[in-house]
Amino acid sequence: MPDNKHDVISETLAKLTENYIREDLFIPNNGCSLPDRSAIISIVDDLRHVIFPGYFAVDSAASVFPEHYAGYRLNDIYDRLKKQITVAFLYQSCTREEANADSEREKARQITERFIRKLPDIQEMLLKDVQAGFDGDPAAKSKEEIIFSYPGFLAIYVFRLAHELYLEKVPFIPRIMTEYAHANTGIDINPGATIGEYFFIDHGTGVVIGETTEIGNYVKLYQGVTLGALSTRKGQALANVKRHPTIHDHVTIYANSTVLGGDTVIGENVIIAGNTFVTESISADTRVSAKNPELVLKQPDAKKQENVWYWEI
Amino acid sequence: MPDNKHDVISETLAKLTENYIREDLFIPNNGCSLPDRSAIISIVDDLRHVIFPGYFAVDSAASVFPEHYAGYRLNDIYDRLKKQITVAFLYQSCTREEANADSEREKARQITERFIRKLPDIQEMLLKDVQAGFDGDPAAKSKEEIIFSYPGFLAIYVFRLAHELYLEKVPFIPRIMTEYAHANTGIDINPGATIGEYFFIDHGTGVVIGETTEIGNYVKLYQGVTLGALSTRKGQALANVKRHPTIHDHVTIYANSTVLGGDTVIGENVIIAGNTFVTESISADTRVSAKNPELVLKQPDAKKQENVWYWEI
Amino acid sequence: MPDNKHDVISETLAKLTENYIREDLFIPNNGCSLPDRSAIISIVDDLRHVIFPGYFAVDSAASVFPEHYAGYRLNDIYDRLKKQITVAFLYQSCTREEANADSEREKARQITERFIRKLPDIQEMLLKDVQAGFDGDPAAKSKEEIIFSYPGFLAIYVFRLAHELYLEKVPFIPRIMTEYAHANTGIDINPGATIGEYFFIDHGTGVVIGETTEIGNYVKLYQGVTLGALSTRKGQALANVKRHPTIHDHVTIYANSTVLGGDTVIGENVIIAGNTFVTESISADTRVSAKNPELVLKQPDAKKQENVWYWEI
Amino acid sequence: MPDNKHDVISETLAKLTENYIREDLFIPNNGCSLPDRSAIISIVDDLRHVIFPGYFAVDSAASVFPEHYAGYRLNDIYDRLKKQITVAFLYQSCTREEANADSEREKARQITERFIRKLPDIQEMLLKDVQAGFDGDPAAKSKEEIIFSYPGFLAIYVFRLAHELYLEKVPFIPRIMTEYAHANTGIDINPGATIGEYFFIDHGTGVVIGETTEIGNYVKLYQGVTLGALSTRKGQALANVKRHPTIHDHVTIYANSTVLGGDTVIGENVIIAGNTFVTESISADTRVSAKNPELVLKQPDAKKQENVWYWEI
Amino acid sequence: MPDNKHDVISETLAKLTENYIREDLFIPNNGCSLPDRSAIISIVDDLRHVIFPGYFAVDSAASVFPEHYAGYRLNDIYDRLKKQITVAFLYQSCTREEANADSEREKARQITERFIRKLPDIQEMLLKDVQAGFDGDPAAKSKEEIIFSYPGFLAIYVFRLAHELYLEKVPFIPRIMTEYAHANTGIDINPGATIGEYFFIDHGTGVVIGETTEIGNYVKLYQGVTLGALSTRKGQALANVKRHPTIHDHVTIYANSTVLGGDTVIGENVIIAGNTFVTESISADTRVSAKNPELVLKQPDAKKQENVWYWEI
Amino acid sequence: MPDNKHDVISETLAKLTENYIREDLFIPNNGCSLPDRSAIISIVDDLRHVIFPGYFAVDSAASVFPEHYAGYRLNDIYDRLKKQITVAFLYQSCTREEANADSEREKARQITERFIRKLPDIQEMLLKDVQAGFDGDPAAKSKEEIIFSYPGFLAIYVFRLAHELYLEKVPFIPRIMTEYAHANTGIDINPGATIGEYFFIDHGTGVVIGETTEIGNYVKLYQGVTLGALSTRKGQALANVKRHPTIHDHVTIYANSTVLGGDTVIGENVIIAGNTFVTESISADTRVSAKNPELVLKQPDAKKQENVWYWEI
Repeated sequence: MPDNKHDVISETLAKLTENYIREDLFIPNNGCSLPDRSAIISIVDDLRHVIFPGYFAVDSAASVFPEHYAGYRLNDIYDRLKKQITVAFLYQSCTREEANADSEREKARQITERFIRKLPDIQEMLLKDVQAGFDGDPAAKSKEEIIFSYPGFLAIYVFRLAHELYLEKVPFIPRIMTEYAHANTGIDINPGATIGEYFFIDHGTGVVIGETTEIGNYVKLYQGVTLGALSTRKGQALANVKRHPTIHDHVTIYANSTVLGGDTVIGENVIIAGNTFVTESISADTRVSAKNPELVLKQPDAKKQENVWYWEI
Repeated sequence: MPDNKHDVISETLAKLTENYIREDLFIPNNGCSLPDRSAIISIVDDLRHVIFPGYFAVDSAASVFPEHYAGYRLNDIYDRLKKQITVAFLYQSCTREEANADSEREKARQITERFIRKLPDIQEMLLKDVQAGFDGDPAAKSKEEIIFSYPGFLAIYVFRLAHELYLEKVPFIPRIMTEYAHANTGIDINPGATIGEYFFIDHGTGVVIGETTEIGNYVKLYQGVTLGALSTRKGQALANVKRHPTIHDHVTIYANSTVLGGDTVIGENVIIAGNTFVTESISADTRVSAKNPELVLKQPDAKKQENVWYWEI
Repeated sequence: MPDNKHDVISETLAKLTENYIREDLFIPNNGCSLPDRSAIISIVDDLRHVIFPGYFAVDSAASVFPEHYAGYRLNDIYDRLKKQITVAFLYQSCTREEANADSEREKARQITERFIRKLPDIQEMLLKDVQAGFDGDPAAKSKEEIIFSYPGFLAIYVFRLAHELYLEKVPFIPRIMTEYAHANTGIDINPGATIGEYFFIDHGTGVVIGETTEIGNYVKLYQGVTLGALSTRKGQALANVKRHPTIHDHVTIYANSTVLGGDTVIGENVIIAGNTFVTESISADTRVSAKNPELVLKQPDAKKQENVWYWEI
Repeated sequence: MPDNKHDVISETLAKLTENYIREDLFIPNNGCSLPDRSAIISIVDDLRHVIFPGYFAVDSAASVFPEHYAGYRLNDIYDRLKKQITVAFLYQSCTREEANADSEREKARQITERFIRKLPDIQEMLLKDVQAGFDGDPAAKSKEEIIFSYPGFLAIYVFRLAHELYLEKVPFIPRIMTEYAHANTGIDINPGATIGEYFFIDHGTGVVIGETTEIGNYVKLYQGVTLGALSTRKGQALANVKRHPTIHDHVTIYANSTVLGGDTVIGENVIIAGNTFVTESISADTRVSAKNPELVLKQPDAKKQENVWYWEI
Repeated sequence: MPDNKHDVISETLAKLTENYIREDLFIPNNGCSLPDRSAIISIVDDLRHVIFPGYFAVDSAASVFPEHYAGYRLNDIYDRLKKQITVAFLYQSCTREEANADSEREKARQITERFIRKLPDIQEMLLKDVQAGFDGDPAAKSKEEIIFSYPGFLAIYVFRLAHELYLEKVPFIPRIMTEYAHANTGIDINPGATIGEYFFIDHGTGVVIGETTEIGNYVKLYQGVTLGALSTRKGQALANVKRHPTIHDHVTIYANSTVLGGDTVIGENVIIAGNTFVTESISADTRVSAKNPELVLKQPDAKKQENVWYWEI
Repeated sequence: MPDNKHDVISETLAKLTENYIREDLFIPNNGCSLPDRSAIISIVDDLRHVIFPGYFAVDSAASVFPEHYAGYRLNDIYDRLKKQITVAFLYQSCTREEANADSEREKARQITERFIRKLPDIQEMLLKDVQAGFDGDPAAKSKEEIIFSYPGFLAIYVFRLAHELYLEKVPFIPRIMTEYAHANTGIDINPGATIGEYFFIDHGTGVVIGETTEIGNYVKLYQGVTLGALSTRKGQALANVKRHPTIHDHVTIYANSTVLGGDTVIGENVIIAGNTFVTESISADTRVSAKNPELVLKQPDAKKQENVWYWEI
């Protein structure tokens, strides 16, 4: 074949290599390793087998010998998670003069232990989220179906794991976890968000929940809802500032609505209609829509009735 | 390594095991098996090889010997589908005293047969959806491209399969199928919806079509469109109620609009602008937008012209 | 087993075979091969290893011997890409009388060469997109995190590759590439769009950027933003017409807004609020929202300050 | 491509199909399923993890939580083995009028239970074989090495499992197991053979031990040793006859020797030189070689000394 | 880690590269491709599914729809085989000035066609080999077991395929096929050998059958039998010479015997004992052993009796 | 299913766990890890790509960019090999009080470096082995075929790698390597043997070469040849003693012959017939056979002629 392939590649390679040398970012931190994305994803997947042993296993051990099953799998997950956390901390400290690899390893070990110990609590919390989904969606045929196939439940499951590692300041891994959920569900919950009990996201595609968002209990979001920040072009200057809204208990937000800003507080029992753009606080027990932005009506009895709870403007 | 791993895991395991015992949901229905999600997904994938034999196969048999190819694959798909349907029914009846495994198996067999027999009709229906996509998108370079890579077409393909099993009241499987499409396309069509011919969803991410939605022929939806229900906190109480809108023939709904409610009827030829929140019926031949919610203008000739059909406010 | 499986399949097969024969589209172009979707996806994945060698590799060669690493991988990618491009052109010319397979092969070879030679430039362009992400998102912990896990960055990476092949008029492959990104990120950028430097999409789910869109430098989009066309039912009649908007430099568009039409021009420094439906041009240095559609206020100093840049109505 | 592929295949297919129809053996027993060879092989492989938990596992659970590890794996192995045994019996009874599938299933279940219960005894037996290898081979660096990489040990391990199923008259599976060992080690031990404790095969390639062979304790065989039958052309007529030799305790047989016949008895402490063809019995405490077939010398003290034990003619 | 890895590899690489340049054999024939060994092996494996459709398939299509099954698989096998044969011929002609790629491709196509057309005959021939195994081994529980797990049968199956390609002078592929059988069974049959009907190799490990061997009908070999050539140090000088023995009908050769030389003829009905070294012809109806090399006894009635046929010296 | 599975497994598990506790060998060395067998095998496989870059690669980089190709692969092999050697030494020192993990790691690093540096020499040595095969086998169609598919060549390739690690006293790994070759070829060369240049094993199944064997240059062995030790029952007492024969230059040993004993020396140019059992030295330039054990004939001119070299008694 009288083609130029050899030359094309050699010349391209020369330019790529120049780029590698000129720009440190290509070969990150002197060749220190980054965590392995697929390893982290498989930890997330495998933890589902421990937390809901009867659902995702291909063998019957989960239901016949749940203790052996979970004991076996936890051991492996422990090792793999500790390894990834260690790599993440070693990468972070890789170019620091004063870095001490042993202390990074010890920190990773302790975090892994605390994380594993949290699993039973996370498990109980997730049961409440299942209940919220079952109460919130007449199309759910059973609670099993929610655990098995609801993307909103997958997203909250991954978030609740990732959030624990975010609180421990583990680099990279919490975000890799939630972006995995994001890719699979279209639901982007930053691992830094604070989310209460009985949380339900229906359908979910397009939902965004920013890093400093605070969400109370019994909150229900529909697809396309953004709880976001106002835009900046100097991103890192705002890195430690509360930029995302606060949502109180029993709030419902309909599809495709956008709530922005760190000072924006949505009070208890508020209902926000769909396709609404909100950048200011809304007081409790009111309903708002794009059509009637200035008119907020009281609807005080919604929660108490515990009855079918329609939106009517 | 003098770490506490053994203790950490053992103590965590004790708590997890307590949870397993206390809460039946973790070990579903006494250890009866649930359907295998990945098996169902591969059925959906493999049926595409039968319905569009020239597109997804890695070997040439599909085009050289389509009959052998389809005959070979159908046999395997039949077995695998029957198995999954059987598991689903056995799970459902697992804790019922009066359950009869043989009659569940027989039911699964009959449903599998009826499903397989429907495939040629589904195949013809899908050709019309391809045509709707080709007519509706100037960016489509060929009909093959629609079959090959349009997410909206993938979603409607999966829906048309899942809907048949929904009508047969098969547990779990229809929803697992459509959630597979949802995860891959961002389009969430409940398998219970009723959808006519020549249906086209462009781009599609964020589209939600609820369980009791009815859609006529020649309907076109853009990304982010919700055909949904008003919210409830007592989900199962509404389980058999029509909660989602009815969309008549030749309707176009632009991006990110939300149409809610079981009594909401969108008449023939209606065009709904983008970012519009609709909770009331719209009469035929009108155009609505968020800016002019009270003004609905007649546009009677749109369909007849069969010409380029722009939205102009 | 006294079931009817054999008959059910045989009879179904007879009908499917009739359909195959009646409708050419099922066995595309006389059995000529279509490109292999998974082969194209793995080219896209593997090129990331060449462009960002320190991030996605499972071995250390990328950081220890980047030149050998990239040289090795480029060779394989070259071969695989040339093969797919060749298949795509051969398919396109498959039923044309005058088609000349050798000239199609030669065309594929030349395109592959030009594509490979473009990689260093694409690499540099992508560094600017990383910078835009880092400046635009306070939640980004590092630039590595953007490369590693930001879906908006994955989408622009895939787009910048696919766009080169679109310009070369390669059939199928550019769209397969961007639909792969679409499936993983919910961001649908048509490979025909023209996009400038320092482009950032935050969160991204639901973003649609149409084929004839033109985007300047320093543009920032949020999730759910559509840069689309007005609807048509006679798609191919508009195939060569500019149908999508033009976005000038330094524009910011908030979540879920929809901008439609080929004559719609969004001027420099414009800020569009969330949930806004725009079908007309907006002049430079103004801010628009659904609430105040007729009122557009000047905000001339935003870019110059290079300071935190909030939306305030 | 103007080739004849379609015709070639169609015509070949017609002839193959004729063959299928004419000869029942091609479509065995009316389409009843045969056991799955790869499933059986993976059972054999996985049982090694249970019996020697620290050797073949890729995770650390085997050594940290051996009980959970073994409990988890045994459950899965039980299910898979029961399934294969069931298939084997159902196949065997498939064409018999009086066959009762439920009783075949029950038989398979009971055999599986007895087999699982035998595992601890097999485990102890195998330890003795390890000891025999360690005592018999100065090249063994450790007992671990024998477990880890000695083909003779792999063959005896597989034999000891398969023999239990042979005694239960399970069809197909015992032979599939030992042929798996045969393919990997070149050692062909028929599952019907009777083999005592402290058995060692060194190197092993070419060893054949026939179905009715009886072997005592402390026997040592080298590569290429055959313990076989005299030839027949009417095989099934001899199916229940003892056709292979009897080897008493403390016998050593050197490389490539052949011992044939059901009446051939090799007495205690006999040493047979290499390349010797034996079809008659040899009395205890003697040494034989091809060079001196008629001369058998006493060597009475070999075992008692428990010392280095050379062959000297 | 301050190690020398980079230098060690770079310096080693320099020397390896020198070797690559100095010795053409390392980069064979100017970079022309060699056939893909694993592709050839999978062709051999997959042809077993066509020839014995009820045995090795994981789905039921083989038994329910054997015609579709075989038609589907043959098509794929045809393509893959043609590709490998083409590569083999192109490699062979790669450095020849006068080579014509198109004529090599055409030759490969024709050979593939002839090979496919031979399959039904090979299939019938193999049935006779099954019968020979069943008649020759009292340990065979069924004919299915022979097809399923007898290494001797696997070896003759692979040989009968490879021999057809050897006769067509296809480079590399016949030998790759038989070496695959050799690796799995320890039976090394050169694809050039000529082997009659009703051939049976029992156990088989260590059997060698050389390139110019001729074997009649109803021949039975045991493990370790060599039908070989006398040694040479100038190998290619003997490349077209008959170097291996001729074995007439109804011969039995016991374990580990060695028969060498192109002029050595073993007459009808001969029985050779085990561990015998034969370099001269043996006349028909005689029995030989190492013990009585000069004594050859008549045994005229063995075949006629069709009775149990023991070796007795 | 009212079966006893749970009890059967629980009771079996209790006994297995008792065994684990009673016998240390089951959980080797306190849970220290053993090397990973499959990792070692893939190192052996991948080194073939470096040493013969044009043969086993699935992509074309090996021939187009051999330097990049080898550089890329060596880096990865270096890391993986160092890891396995480290694990092996750490295991060995795991229970020793005075063990120092860092010094074990350093030792592993140095050995890896020396091993990598040896590769070019091994590569050259192997070329000579290819030549010996080509000169020694008229059935070899090309040198490529020897590299590609001769089991004797695979065995010597693996041996030459493993021998280097044996000399470095690396535990486990050399034996795992040669047992991998043994399983694939039936040729069992202990990594401790000393083997000269131009070594050829034809066919090879059943060949055994013991740990303290010494082999000169231009030696040729046929299948089934054993170069072994006399038997012992007190293996470890002989661990450092020369137990296997010494074979001088230009020796040929025919199939299935057995040469035993540490004092047995086979002189230059000796030819040993097949099926011969040798436990005493043979002087140079002689030929021996089982038939004429006491008669050794001079054959002085064999090597000098460099001509066709037949065995004639």
